[in-house]
Amino acid sequence: MTEEKKDDNVIYVGKKPSMGYVLAALTQFTNGAKEVVVKARGKLTAKAITVAEVLRNRYLPELKVKDVKIGTEELTSEDGKVSRVSSIEIYLVKE
Amino acid sequence: MTEEKKDDNVIYVGKKPSMGYVLAALTQFTNGAKEVVVKARGKLTAKAITVAEVLRNRYLPELKVKDVKIGTEELTSEDGKVSRVSSIEIYLVKE
Repeated sequence: MTEEKKDDNVIYVGKKPSMGYVLAALTQFTNGAKEVVVKARGKLTAKAITVAEVLRNRYLPELKVKDVKIGTEELTSEDGKVSRVSSIEIYLVKE
Repeated sequence: MTEEKKDDNVIYVGKKPSMGYVLAALTQFTNGAKEVVVKARGKLTAKAITVAEVLRNRYLPELKVKDVKIGTEELTSEDGKVSRVSSIEIYLVKE
């Protein structure tokens, strides 16, 4: 079983509608996860917050935000240009 | 003097370019603030993270992120319609 794999509990928020990520996280908690990390970069960091908030407010009110980490990541494009983007990691735990 | 007022140490991130908010926070620390809170709502939450990160990476590497709070706020428009937006508060401290 791969249930113990760390990355199983990470939701990477991308360009799809928020609700898909909300339901992905909900599924992980329903399947027994005690902690899920919602991650995003750049402008999608705003969506990551919304995903965490909708999950808590609408589906799992017992969830706690254990920690929120912000940071900066460097992306190197194909032509070697380096750009920096902000990132967020939201640690949600079921108590 | 109004220096003791709590709101003096809050930066509300809006639609203007990020650098203005970075410099506003930098000015507060330069004027002796030990803590500055960067706040934003909705899509601007992503910009608030960038403001905090640029401030730390480019100007004040000794700054620590003491806490990051995420939440949801209800906005009531003039026609009485209630909408919910995500919010962020980033607590930066000079050590």
